[in-house]
Amino acid sequence: MESERYQRGDNILSEIYGNEGARVMSDLEAVCPDLVRYIKEFPFGDIYSRSGLELKTRELITVAALTAMGNARPQLKSHIHGALNVGCSREEVMEVILQMAVYAGFPAALNGMTAAGEVFNQRDRSS
Amino acid sequence: MESERYQRGDNILSEIYGNEGARVMSDLEAVCPDLVRYIKEFPFGDIYSRSGLELKTRELITVAALTAMGNARPQLKSHIHGALNVGCSREEVMEVILQMAVYAGFPAALNGMTAAGEVFNQRDRSS
Amino acid sequence: MESERYQRGDNILSEIYGNEGARVMSDLEAVCPDLVRYIKEFPFGDIYSRSGLELKTRELITVAALTAMGNARPQLKSHIHGALNVGCSREEVMEVILQMAVYAGFPAALNGMTAAGEVFNQRDRSS
Amino acid sequence: MESERYQRGDNILSEIYGNEGARVMSDLEAVCPDLVRYIKEFPFGDIYSRSGLELKTRELITVAALTAMGNARPQLKSHIHGALNVGCSREEVMEVILQMAVYAGFPAALNGMTAAGEVFNQRDRSS
Amino acid sequence: MESERYQRGDNILSEIYGNEGARVMSDLEAVCPDLVRYIKEFPFGDIYSRSGLELKTRELITVAALTAMGNARPQLKSHIHGALNVGCSREEVMEVILQMAVYAGFPAALNGMTAAGEVFNQRDRSS
Amino acid sequence: MESERYQRGDNILSEIYGNEGARVMSDLEAVCPDLVRYIKEFPFGDIYSRSGLELKTRELITVAALTAMGNARPQLKSHIHGALNVGCSREEVMEVILQMAVYAGFPAALNGMTAAGEVFNQRDRSS
Repeated sequence: MESERYQRGDNILSEIYGNEGARVMSDLEAVCPDLVRYIKEFPFGDIYSRSGLELKTRELITVAALTAMGNARPQLKSHIHGALNVGCSREEVMEVILQMAVYAGFPAALNGMTAAGEVFNQRDRSS
Repeated sequence: MESERYQRGDNILSEIYGNEGARVMSDLEAVCPDLVRYIKEFPFGDIYSRSGLELKTRELITVAALTAMGNARPQLKSHIHGALNVGCSREEVMEVILQMAVYAGFPAALNGMTAAGEVFNQRDRSS
Repeated sequence: MESERYQRGDNILSEIYGNEGARVMSDLEAVCPDLVRYIKEFPFGDIYSRSGLELKTRELITVAALTAMGNARPQLKSHIHGALNVGCSREEVMEVILQMAVYAGFPAALNGMTAAGEVFNQRDRSS
Repeated sequence: MESERYQRGDNILSEIYGNEGARVMSDLEAVCPDLVRYIKEFPFGDIYSRSGLELKTRELITVAALTAMGNARPQLKSHIHGALNVGCSREEVMEVILQMAVYAGFPAALNGMTAAGEVFNQRDRSS
Repeated sequence: MESERYQRGDNILSEIYGNEGARVMSDLEAVCPDLVRYIKEFPFGDIYSRSGLELKTRELITVAALTAMGNARPQLKSHIHGALNVGCSREEVMEVILQMAVYAGFPAALNGMTAAGEVFNQRDRSS
Repeated sequence: MESERYQRGDNILSEIYGNEGARVMSDLEAVCPDLVRYIKEFPFGDIYSRSGLELKTRELITVAALTAMGNARPQLKSHIHGALNVGCSREEVMEVILQMAVYAGFPAALNGMTAAGEVFNQRDRSS
């Protein structure tokens, strides 16, 4: 039986990431179903579903954090997709990544921008 | 002779951080004036003065990144002040820090929230 | 109304950290009660309450991770207390921290060991 | 002439990582033989050969640290192999990685779990 | 119109990294021309062009930092090329990376050394 | 019986850090004598005693790495002392820290520079 938190998180995850989110969760499901469940319940069911910040802002702060940390490239790309899916512009995403040069250094910004470029290209090709 | 970038950065720095920003820069001026100049020119003169993101969003993504990195507490506190000074609510700042539990772990969020609590208290006392 | 997860997490938190855990949560409660709730629900209610690893092992891997990350000293000290409270020996804690010299460098191990020394002293004084 | 530490480390390295460890060391030998020697002498000859922690626990705390740090994927995979080789179960490895979601965030846990899935698949294919 | 800082940075970038630097900047130009401009202006136009440290030392401290941080492999390889281009020996580069085992752990040093091995091979093939 | 590596490392440690190094080691000796021994044997007995890099360069790359990592302030201050003790100028130390703004962000450089300022003041007072 799935909890209400799970259901809410699953809905938000589908809404933000679409098929891409489903694919990542499906790969992970084969290794550790409990991690999939927790991801739906806590980050999405509990946090992203909170009021208090627009979904667009939630995606931009995540892009900022993942660019700055610099060690989670697949998640950074997913969240760049997510940011665009919920209505952020490419310019806003690039501004966020650019600003990380100040706080985490130029290599972090450069690698984040390269990831953004790949996401933009992928979306251009599939549109 | 000060560059236009310097002047623009100095103005933004004063606008966002007020006396607190001046104090930090003055302490640093005594050690390395060139770093003060670069801080005014690049982060503030070049980046924060860009259009493309509201100043409120710029402060929130910085609070996100510094909370996630977890190794720059004085700057995190300055930027929490900055976020509030440019019009973010305490609730928005707390939402940003809370979300970092997802991306950087609970200790990062907890330490960020403690820093926010200290900033809030300081502002309550001095108001 | 508190969830079953919350209650379970609250119990484990009390069992492992005793008054020290209550004090940390109480300070945080004043800033952001939702973060306190999430800490009890997810890390403790969901993760620490899982079978599959002894509680002693759970505390040792946390001491390892926090020593290696090197940016969460208050949490590292809490978990050193926790490790000792659930039955790890001081020697085991020190072995874990020592091994982190290999994976995160000597400064991380040195700072972790200093934190351990402070915890040991505090426990000696209060016993 | 090889030191006693070197010999002891070389033995432990072979015992834990088998052919995989030999291959990594051989690739590195071609670039910097002194680093190979230091790896055998200090991490393995000095640290892993200490009493005070079971080898299984040593491997689990290393899996924890490398998952949390998130910037050493090849070494994480080697140590997941190592953990399994010295008698940890796949479930124990997954529990360790899962718990890192709490301390280093969900992306770190997700990437660690993906690495574990690759190691498990590789072992299934070669058995 | 390009600033003097830009021109100075562009010259230093060409001098240190040659065609490789031009290629990286060209790829990035297609995504975010402003980041290219900032890279030429601040890191190279402002910092690398300062007196006070030899260019060889500037490259070695960058190799040290990027090896230690462990999350910027493309930039690490560019700067290993850069170090060799401005007159550092392979031995000096390896000594720097080796020393990082002490401050950032053996995985960081091992991954840095592997990157160095790839750069050395590439230069041997193209000479 | 102390090894030749230990003796060599102990000598270098005394030579570089003087009384300050002895004090740190003595505090640590009370918690974990084996870590003191390893620090003397591996970082100092093995690495700092290698030829291939001048001691001045060894200290500067360590200052770079610790500034960039940003989570080892006590060790950063010790190595700034060390750099000055082996003949680096204050200007060289500041150039290294300044350059880290490029690779690890301005907060890392600012915190490193503050640490340098404290070291310089301490040396001015005691001279």
